[in-house]
Amino acid sequence: MGEFDLIARYFTRPVRRSPLGVGDDCALLQPAAGMQLAVSTDLLVEGRHFLSTVDAGRLGHKSLAVNLSDLAACGARPLAFTLSLSLPQVDEAWLAGFAAGLFALADAHQCELVGGDTTRGPLCINITVFGEVPAGAALLRSGARPGDDLWVSGTLGDARLALEAFRGTVSLPQPMFESARLRLEQPEPRVALGCALRGIATSAIDLSDGLLGDLGHVLARSGAGATVETAAVTPLLAATRSGLQLPLEQLQALVLAGGDDYELAFTAPADQRAAVEAAAAQAGTPVTRIGRIDAEPGLRLLDAQGRALERRFASFDHFAT
Amino acid sequence: MGEFDLIARYFTRPVRRSPLGVGDDCALLQPAAGMQLAVSTDLLVEGRHFLSTVDAGRLGHKSLAVNLSDLAACGARPLAFTLSLSLPQVDEAWLAGFAAGLFALADAHQCELVGGDTTRGPLCINITVFGEVPAGAALLRSGARPGDDLWVSGTLGDARLALEAFRGTVSLPQPMFESARLRLEQPEPRVALGCALRGIATSAIDLSDGLLGDLGHVLARSGAGATVETAAVTPLLAATRSGLQLPLEQLQALVLAGGDDYELAFTAPADQRAAVEAAAAQAGTPVTRIGRIDAEPGLRLLDAQGRALERRFASFDHFAT
Repeated sequence: MGEFDLIARYFTRPVRRSPLGVGDDCALLQPAAGMQLAVSTDLLVEGRHFLSTVDAGRLGHKSLAVNLSDLAACGARPLAFTLSLSLPQVDEAWLAGFAAGLFALADAHQCELVGGDTTRGPLCINITVFGEVPAGAALLRSGARPGDDLWVSGTLGDARLALEAFRGTVSLPQPMFESARLRLEQPEPRVALGCALRGIATSAIDLSDGLLGDLGHVLARSGAGATVETAAVTPLLAATRSGLQLPLEQLQALVLAGGDDYELAFTAPADQRAAVEAAAAQAGTPVTRIGRIDAEPGLRLLDAQGRALERRFASFDHFAT
Repeated sequence: MGEFDLIARYFTRPVRRSPLGVGDDCALLQPAAGMQLAVSTDLLVEGRHFLSTVDAGRLGHKSLAVNLSDLAACGARPLAFTLSLSLPQVDEAWLAGFAAGLFALADAHQCELVGGDTTRGPLCINITVFGEVPAGAALLRSGARPGDDLWVSGTLGDARLALEAFRGTVSLPQPMFESARLRLEQPEPRVALGCALRGIATSAIDLSDGLLGDLGHVLARSGAGATVETAAVTPLLAATRSGLQLPLEQLQALVLAGGDDYELAFTAPADQRAAVEAAAAQAGTPVTRIGRIDAEPGLRLLDAQGRALERRFASFDHFAT
């Protein structure tokens, strides 16, 4: 099968929301009046961002999910995406699985494929995603203010737990491993929550490199510091709710610096707690208050007794590891 | 140097035209009222789209040029782009050269970097580019009509000639090799011409896989055929103007199916010839009339005596070669 047959068979579908989709030199997008277009792009490389053995459908899902997660962090509603795919060979079963996982998530978010590029090469996937947000309403990393509450959505650390199980550094019962593995391989982007937080949250970021590292980006751009109550964070490892017992330091490392969570961390004024809870309920996504934003720069961790925790946790860096 | 230092040092510049650039979860774009956003994406992989030995500055230029060429083919004016970069290692001299070539072309077209992704992995580069075009004015592949003239811009075949010289299948005098190599490594996207052809051309495509193959996409989407006068095309190899002598079949293969030309092929009604010439003069880009669109499907090649040429030329296909 040639390049154009491959595109025609697996990656060409009619567009409904965009004026022009796959098959011309460019796609055409038409944001509604008053809307800004939010754009994000993520490149996934075999062996670095996913294991070679991952199920093709889950990889299709995740390739789009990590991009939708960026839209969620801005409070943007998904609109369309482009897909660049470099493949070592044409494997039709793999392509069918990848496309099925990709389009299932795309359809769930009414996000349509409008263009792309396909070539032979090492397996890597680059998606660029487009979303709409009312002008001026995007949630930015720069808006956190001293006194704001610090929140996170969902659960944290289970994706990294699965990675550690793959690496053999922890051993998990099979059902617990499968649950954690789903978090690693098929994260659910918090799009509904991000949109519901417009006008309530003062800043937001999606968690891909670990809570503390990503929180650091918010603090740097907001010119602020933060205090995190680690005892509020450690119960967020879903596996602990299923009975997993881990040494405290290992548990803290997973939830504070595990990476690949694709949850949202966000800030909101303390007088907006009811509004945050209502937005979370509306989105069907649990949220947890884990600390506050300080005027004093730096990131302070408190243990369960409210004492300063000295331990440092490294954030994920593609060129430092 | 870590991932975030690398981005800060080489790939973060203030935005002027976009509401939000590099450094948040998403960039924000704001197309002007009445404008559609044209989007295109191209993935370049080492060893397939460029030689490992290519100068980093030229590669930076080409990575954006091939995307701007898609905007040109739609008649869209460049606005912004995202850059995804997978690098085997951090090589600061290479990064500085790549960024210099990339931004020189970006600045020439007032096209600003608004976001991206950087990771360790095999060397590959994915750019997604955004341009503006008045709603309904984009040049599409589907608009060619029987009776239209068929035109191409600039010169054809020299990029492939350089590739053949690299492969050792042809031998060129040094100055001729350097000229051809520039066409391969540093193509100039025909943005001014594409914009000038709005309202004049009925269809357009950029030539990346070879004239005949790319023309085939126009014919398929327009439901038409075409006749190409090969004698009008063969003089378009710039090297022949510098005295290169080649067997006719080899010359035809280069100009008709060479690939990597990044010129525009376009159609326009016969009564628009003066308008086409004026647009080309305004853009400073020579154009040549090489044939016509027919109602009869299929692509017919005529030799210098007007006789049908039977030879077939294969278009470039990443999975067929």
